[in-house]
Amino acid sequence: MEMAAAKGAQNGRSAPEWRVTVPEGASAMGEHEAGRAARAWAWLVSCVLTFRDKVLGFARRVWKIGADDPRRAVHGLKVGLALVLVSVFYYTRPLYDGVGGAAMWAVLTVVVVFEYTVGGCVYKGFNRAFATASAGVVALGVHWIASKSGDKFEPFICSGSVFLLAAMATFSRFIPTVKARFDYGVTIFILTYSLVAVSGYRVGALLAMAQQRISTVSIGIFICLAVCVLICPVWAGQELHRATVHNMEKLAGAVEACVEDYFAAAEVNNRQPSAKADGYKCVLNSKASEDAQGNLARWEPAHGKFGFRHPYGQYRNVGAAMRHCAYCVEALSGCIRSAETQAPAHAKRHLADACTRVAAQCARVLREASSSVSTMTTSRSLDLAVAETKTAVQEVQANLRALPANLLMDAAQLFTVTSLLINVSTRVEGVVDAVDTLASLAAFKAADDEKPAESGTKVCNP
Amino acid sequence: MEMAAAKGAQNGRSAPEWRVTVPEGASAMGEHEAGRAARAWAWLVSCVLTFRDKVLGFARRVWKIGADDPRRAVHGLKVGLALVLVSVFYYTRPLYDGVGGAAMWAVLTVVVVFEYTVGGCVYKGFNRAFATASAGVVALGVHWIASKSGDKFEPFICSGSVFLLAAMATFSRFIPTVKARFDYGVTIFILTYSLVAVSGYRVGALLAMAQQRISTVSIGIFICLAVCVLICPVWAGQELHRATVHNMEKLAGAVEACVEDYFAAAEVNNRQPSAKADGYKCVLNSKASEDAQGNLARWEPAHGKFGFRHPYGQYRNVGAAMRHCAYCVEALSGCIRSAETQAPAHAKRHLADACTRVAAQCARVLREASSSVSTMTTSRSLDLAVAETKTAVQEVQANLRALPANLLMDAAQLFTVTSLLINVSTRVEGVVDAVDTLASLAAFKAADDEKPAESGTKVCNP
Repeated sequence: MEMAAAKGAQNGRSAPEWRVTVPEGASAMGEHEAGRAARAWAWLVSCVLTFRDKVLGFARRVWKIGADDPRRAVHGLKVGLALVLVSVFYYTRPLYDGVGGAAMWAVLTVVVVFEYTVGGCVYKGFNRAFATASAGVVALGVHWIASKSGDKFEPFICSGSVFLLAAMATFSRFIPTVKARFDYGVTIFILTYSLVAVSGYRVGALLAMAQQRISTVSIGIFICLAVCVLICPVWAGQELHRATVHNMEKLAGAVEACVEDYFAAAEVNNRQPSAKADGYKCVLNSKASEDAQGNLARWEPAHGKFGFRHPYGQYRNVGAAMRHCAYCVEALSGCIRSAETQAPAHAKRHLADACTRVAAQCARVLREASSSVSTMTTSRSLDLAVAETKTAVQEVQANLRALPANLLMDAAQLFTVTSLLINVSTRVEGVVDAVDTLASLAAFKAADDEKPAESGTKVCNP
Repeated sequence: MEMAAAKGAQNGRSAPEWRVTVPEGASAMGEHEAGRAARAWAWLVSCVLTFRDKVLGFARRVWKIGADDPRRAVHGLKVGLALVLVSVFYYTRPLYDGVGGAAMWAVLTVVVVFEYTVGGCVYKGFNRAFATASAGVVALGVHWIASKSGDKFEPFICSGSVFLLAAMATFSRFIPTVKARFDYGVTIFILTYSLVAVSGYRVGALLAMAQQRISTVSIGIFICLAVCVLICPVWAGQELHRATVHNMEKLAGAVEACVEDYFAAAEVNNRQPSAKADGYKCVLNSKASEDAQGNLARWEPAHGKFGFRHPYGQYRNVGAAMRHCAYCVEALSGCIRSAETQAPAHAKRHLADACTRVAAQCARVLREASSSVSTMTTSRSLDLAVAETKTAVQEVQANLRALPANLLMDAAQLFTVTSLLINVSTRVEGVVDAVDTLASLAAFKAADDEKPAESGTKVCNP
C-alpha cells in the first residue's frame, strides 16, 4: 500500500490531482507547501523502501550463494576456527610478546595459507615453508659473505643482492611451470630474503630469529592443514572430477535437446529452444577453472578413490575434448536457431528418425562415459554405444543420399544440421578416447556385472 | 665429436667392437675392467652433456620469455628497485629498529602490492590501505567495548569477534562482486583485525602503533605506485585493448584462410591447412584473461587515449561476440578438415568465387572493426563493408539455388561449409555491433578523411 502510494508520488502523477483540489481564492501558497512536504515525504518513503528492497535482494542473493553450496559457509567457519585456535595457542604461551613477535607470524600464516580446497592449502603451506627456509639459508649465506667484506661494502652487498634476487625471482614468475606451481613461493622467497637482508647485521641474532620464525610458521601451517583436512574437507581433485562428470552430462543433454527441438519444430511450428539445449554453455569456458583445479589437485594426498598419483592432468585433456565437442554443438545450436529458411517439413521428416537416433546415441555415449568417470569403472557398454552411434551415422548418410532430388533445393539448413551432427558424433568419439586414456591411467576397475553401473555423481559427494 | 662418441657408448654399440680387439689368451679380465671404466666414463660424459643440453634448452626458453616481451624483464628490475628504495629509506632513518618494526611492514607492503600492471598495483594498494584502516577502526571499537566488559570476558569477546568477522569476511569472498574487486582487501581485513585483536590490551598503545603502521604502509604503497607508473608502466587497459585488436585480426585471418584453403584444395588436391587458419584458437579461451584485465583496468587513472571512465566492461562484450564467432569458425574448420567425402571439384568451383568473396568480406569487416578499435576512431567504411558482406551472402545463396540438381547428391560438405560461412558472417555482424557500442560508449572520434585510418596496433605501444 505505502509503496504503491510512494511510487505514484514519485512518477509525478499525484501532483496534478493535488492542484485540481485547490479551490479558487484559497491559500494556494500554503497548499503548495503542504504538497511539497507530502511529495518530500513520499520521496523519502520511496527511498527507504527502495533501499530496503535492495538490501533484501542482496541478502537473498548472499543467502543463495551459501544455500547452493553450504561448504562455502563452512569454509568461513573453518577460517574463523583456525584463527581462534592459533590465537588461543599464543594467548596461553608465556613467550607471547605482542604483535611484533611470534604470534604475528602464526596469525599471518593462517590468514594467507588457509584456502578453500585441501590442494590450495597444501600448495600454499608447502610454498611458504620451502620458500621461507630457502630464502633464509640464502640470506644467511649472503650475510656471512657481506660481513667478511668490511663495513663499507656491507650495505651495498645487501642492497645489491636484494635487487638482483628480487628481479630474478619476479621474472621467474613468467615461466609457466613456476607460475603454475610456485607462484606463491616466489613471493614469499622475495619477502623473506628482503626482510632478513634489511634486518640487523649479526648472524647470531639472525639464527635465533630464524629458529623462532620457523617454529611459528610451522605451527600456523599445521593448524591450517589440520582444520582444512579434518573438518568437511573440500578436495580440488574431487571438484575437478565432479565438474568433469557434470559437464559431460550437460553436454549429453544439450546434443539430444538441440536435435529434438529442431525436428519437433517441424511438427508444432514452435522454435523456442528448451533450457536443456543450452547445457553446452557451461563447457565452453571451463578451461580456466579446470586448469586451476588441476594444478591444486596435484598437491593433494591420496583420499577416497583418488590415489596419490591420480592422473589429474588427463582431466584437462578430457575437458579439452569436451570443449572441442561443445564448439560444434554451439554451431549446431546457432544453425538451428538462425533465421535461415527452414527446410520443408517433409524433407525434415525424411531424416528426423535417423538424426534423432544419432543425437540420442551421442547423448548415450556421453552419459556412459560420464557414468564411467563418475563411478571410476570401465564401462562395457561404452564401446557398444560408440559402435551403434557409427551405425546410426551411416543410416543418416544413407537417408541423405536417398533424399529425392526435388527436395534438395530447399534443404540447405537440413544438410548443415545433419553434417554438424555427424561432426558432433566424431568429436564425441574424441571425448570417449580421452576418457579411455583416463581410465587406463587411473586404473579404473572393470564394471561389476551383477551390479549395474550407478549413474550420477554419487561417488563425488565426500 | 665427444658427444657422438658418448652416444655410441651409451647405446651399447662400442662394447662388441671392444671385445673383437681382445686377442686370444690376453688378460681378458683387465681388458674387461678397462672396458667397464671406459663405459662408465662415456656414461658420465653423456650425463653431463644431457644435463648441459637441458640447462641450455631451459635457458633458451627463459630467454625467449624475456625476448618476446621485454617488459617482463623490466618488471623484475622494477620490483628490485622498489625494494632497494624502501630498504634504503629505512636504512637512513633513525627510527629503524630491526625486522619486527616499521621497516618490515614497508618491505612486506612492497612485495605483496607490486603487480605487473598499474591497475593491479592500484587495486592492491587501495585494498591494502582501505582494509587496513577499516579493520583497525573496527578492532579499536571492539577493543574498547571489550575493555568495558571486565577482565573475565575480554578474551572471549576478542576471540569471538575474530571468529565471527573472519568467518563472515571469508564467506563474502564467494560473492562475485567482492571476489572481483575486493578479494585482496578481505584477506588484509582479516589479517589486520586478527593481529590487532590478539595483540596487547591497551587502546593507547594500539593507537600509537596504528599511526606508525599507517605511515609505513603508505610509504610502501607510495613507492610501489611511483615505480610502477613512472618506469615503463604496463596498463591493464592497454593490454586488454591490444589483446582485443590482436584477436580480431587473428579471427579475420582465420576466416579468410580457412575458406581459401578449402577451395584451393579443389585445385591442387592438397588439404594441409595453413598456420593462419588456426588464428581463431587464441580467441576461444580468451575469457579468463579478458575478465581479469577488465577488472584491473577499472582501477587505472586516465592515461593516453584512455579516459577515467573508459568503458572497459564493453571490451568483455566485444570479446564474447568474438568468441561466439570463433566457435562457428572452429566448426567450419573442423568440417573442412573432416574425413567426410569431399564435394566434387566442379561443384566446388561453382561456389568458389562467391564463398571466397564472403570470407574476404568477413575478414575485411573484422579488420575494419579492429582498426577502428585500434585507432579509436569510428570507421566510415565499416557500414559499407557490412552491407557488401550481405550482398556477397545473397550471391552465395543464389548460386547455391542455381546448383544443378545432379551435383547436389555429393555436395553435402559443400552445403555445410557454405551454411557455416553464412553463419560466421552473421556472427561477424554481432562483433561489429559490439564494436559500435564500444565506439559510442568510449566516444571514438570520427575518422579523418584526409588521413587514411592507420591499421595495426600502433596506438597500443606505450
